[in-house]
Amino acid sequence: MIPQPVLDPQSEVPLYRQLQQHFADLIRSGILSNGERLPATRELAGQLGLNRTTVSAAYELLESSGLITGHVGRGSFVTAAGGGNAPGLDWEALLPAPIPAAGPVLGRDGISFATSRPAEELFPLDDMRVSCNEVLQSEGLASILQLGSPAGFEPLRRHLLAEGRQQGMVKPGDDLIVTSGCQQALDLVARVLIRSGDKVVLEDPVYPGLKNLLAQAGAQLLGVPVGSDGMELDHLERVMRRERPKLLVVTSDFQNPTGATLPPESRSTVLRLARECGTIVIENDLYGALRYEGEPIPSLKQMDESGHTILLRSFSKIAFPGLRVGWVIGPRAPLARLLQSKQLCDLHTDQFSQAVLLQFAESGRLAAHLTRMLKAGAERLHTALAACARYLPAGSKFTRPQGGMNLWVRLPEPLDAGELLPRVQRDNVAYLPGKFFAVSRPETGSFRLSFAGVSPALIDKGIAILGDIFRRELERTRSADAFEPAQAMV
Amino acid sequence: MIPQPVLDPQSEVPLYRQLQQHFADLIRSGILSNGERLPATRELAGQLGLNRTTVSAAYELLESSGLITGHVGRGSFVTAAGGGNAPGLDWEALLPAPIPAAGPVLGRDGISFATSRPAEELFPLDDMRVSCNEVLQSEGLASILQLGSPAGFEPLRRHLLAEGRQQGMVKPGDDLIVTSGCQQALDLVARVLIRSGDKVVLEDPVYPGLKNLLAQAGAQLLGVPVGSDGMELDHLERVMRRERPKLLVVTSDFQNPTGATLPPESRSTVLRLARECGTIVIENDLYGALRYEGEPIPSLKQMDESGHTILLRSFSKIAFPGLRVGWVIGPRAPLARLLQSKQLCDLHTDQFSQAVLLQFAESGRLAAHLTRMLKAGAERLHTALAACARYLPAGSKFTRPQGGMNLWVRLPEPLDAGELLPRVQRDNVAYLPGKFFAVSRPETGSFRLSFAGVSPALIDKGIAILGDIFRRELERTRSADAFEPAQAMV
Repeated sequence: MIPQPVLDPQSEVPLYRQLQQHFADLIRSGILSNGERLPATRELAGQLGLNRTTVSAAYELLESSGLITGHVGRGSFVTAAGGGNAPGLDWEALLPAPIPAAGPVLGRDGISFATSRPAEELFPLDDMRVSCNEVLQSEGLASILQLGSPAGFEPLRRHLLAEGRQQGMVKPGDDLIVTSGCQQALDLVARVLIRSGDKVVLEDPVYPGLKNLLAQAGAQLLGVPVGSDGMELDHLERVMRRERPKLLVVTSDFQNPTGATLPPESRSTVLRLARECGTIVIENDLYGALRYEGEPIPSLKQMDESGHTILLRSFSKIAFPGLRVGWVIGPRAPLARLLQSKQLCDLHTDQFSQAVLLQFAESGRLAAHLTRMLKAGAERLHTALAACARYLPAGSKFTRPQGGMNLWVRLPEPLDAGELLPRVQRDNVAYLPGKFFAVSRPETGSFRLSFAGVSPALIDKGIAILGDIFRRELERTRSADAFEPAQAMV
Repeated sequence: MIPQPVLDPQSEVPLYRQLQQHFADLIRSGILSNGERLPATRELAGQLGLNRTTVSAAYELLESSGLITGHVGRGSFVTAAGGGNAPGLDWEALLPAPIPAAGPVLGRDGISFATSRPAEELFPLDDMRVSCNEVLQSEGLASILQLGSPAGFEPLRRHLLAEGRQQGMVKPGDDLIVTSGCQQALDLVARVLIRSGDKVVLEDPVYPGLKNLLAQAGAQLLGVPVGSDGMELDHLERVMRRERPKLLVVTSDFQNPTGATLPPESRSTVLRLARECGTIVIENDLYGALRYEGEPIPSLKQMDESGHTILLRSFSKIAFPGLRVGWVIGPRAPLARLLQSKQLCDLHTDQFSQAVLLQFAESGRLAAHLTRMLKAGAERLHTALAACARYLPAGSKFTRPQGGMNLWVRLPEPLDAGELLPRVQRDNVAYLPGKFFAVSRPETGSFRLSFAGVSPALIDKGIAILGDIFRRELERTRSADAFEPAQAMV
């Protein structure tokens, strides 16, 4: 006689699962033994006053975990095997190679120069609350929460189009798509425009999230060295003429990681080369709005009269990265394909955040926030530059951007920024070593110093700690050299 | 003498752009003529009290639009060409083939059965406002707006993991990633698991966003016909044994478009076949929570003890699709790769919406909303079934799901649901014809009727209109047959 289960119809655990648990316990505890026949589903359903499907479901669970075996027409029997040891998949054989991961992790108290992101303490939370509440009180709330359009929340699209036209970013024949941040725009570009083996020119060093994405898409990456004035033009011209690449990806203002900005005359050259070589220009303008000093320079998109340029912009660096809203501007033909790809990727970008950011922008709160960010950014930039000059050992070099979030530091030989990172992290400081950014020229002595998210006091303190570690390491290696026994001349 | 520009430093238009506009106007109006030399940048900057970079920027813009040409050492000269007619890119040669678009568009007053989405008028807006305000008032607001983790907002992840464990969806060794809706989860699966030529078994008919995605990823699609009990098992078994596919994508409950549900014993068979063939099962459980009647059936993920199944779920059908939050549960090995891919796709999913949905769920508001949705869904389902029985012409067939959002209607011969759509839309009704869902067996007489987003009154009215059109069309074709002159026998 098989013990009857006690089932609780009020429980959150469904009945079939209670029933399955009952039999699994009986089998695992040996009360039901190998070969023993379970009651027929119809019979047990009748006894317990259950739907027959419920009993079947419980039996199916037992069978799939190997505790019973069903035989058509004969019923279900306990099998000796017991559960949980069914042969699994060999996942590693089915999966692609992992992507090399970047990025040190620090505790909350650390000073992290490792992430290119805005300062959390500068977020205008009250303005965000007001903008959010305006959306929550708006008549359109229900339709904002409903499925939307892949091109973006239409009022935000119209706002960005109008702004882009006023700035000369949107040309006749251009269109605009809202994306889930700039990263998704890069991804859509890679999906639509890259076929395996396509040649893509990019800055070297460059943002790892761009490099890895293009590599995954099968692109052949051609790095052009970046100096303090952006890509080296002679090198770029040689590569472009020789390789006739399909794409050129460029960050004209305050490039990540170097902070370098392309001068106006170089921009003309880039556009001329793109025209001559039939190359599509992807302008990743993530930092252009964060100019702390100097005159603004027109973007490639603004200068481009031949429709070669696709422009990527975002709210992530000027407002709230956690909301993941960016946009793409470019000629209608490629944008129509990006739109199809966008729909397959995630249907559309979160509409609530789009509506909130529209409110934030249209109310003038974004402009006010940007003014404060520019002031704070200038102070942070100057603090970082002064601290680098003061604390870094002689022979160190660093870029002097006029905006953005990043400096690029080159340490004197033989220091290796990657090797020194664990030492630096022990003192609760972090940066991202140069190797993560290399396309084809790893600069072991370099690292990115992302200053914008760190307060001036901590910037000074953190760079002082770095300087101290670097100086002592230099002294150590030099004194080691000094005491190294002379090599035998053979 | 070249007229001096009047520049406004207070204007929102940057100085370089004002300067560029000034010269462009002079050239286009003929005041400056072909071959005329512009002042040197240094000279003009001095005259106007501008930074030299500003003047250079203006000249670069003029040059890139073809209005002037610069010669090193000699200066810049007006060129006759005029702007705007630089040779463009041949975009069509550079772009992939477009994806066939689906979906009729209707005005606001229409009755659309074309979209599988929840009813907007049932959205609990006050509960949403409260949840949102709780997030806005929370201490963690600033970090929610900051850059987050690719795996998802950690408190939401923990909530979903705990819920999944309680439901037996999360097994030991499983992990969970938050995605931008189910669509992104499908996309990540395709990216990570599909190489060109890989074989994928899927239901036929199936959701076009899945089919198109897999096709784009280069998969070889193997459709298994779906009957009222889901995939035909004999067919599935033959295909699985012959092809040993890499992936099997299945919607066990209330499949889109048919509404069909796989019975418990079929689920066991699916899992057994997957184990025997080394196939990964992707269970797209978008509708499982929307069971209006009948006993719940354990999901493949719940039944699977061998770790072959990756489960996709979402807030889109049970809460707010506009917020784009879904999640994936599966063994750690594949999820680690999905996570890397997720990071390249969009860094992470909107954190604000994740936080709001967590608040919505943890407060019990989601459960309360779901209760109301199940009640309303049941009424809509019954109304749709009754209206189909009452209004559709004799010989029509339709599925009878116990939940979800969709019915599948087969019209009697020779009606073609695709051809009839424009006629139907003239009467302000819409559905999605069967051809959009076909993997390899286009059912011209079929269409998807998405009832969940339409009020009972409009469901009845809309199906009455459809029935009327179909009946008249049937009469027309039959009378046309009757009057068709007999064919000459040759």
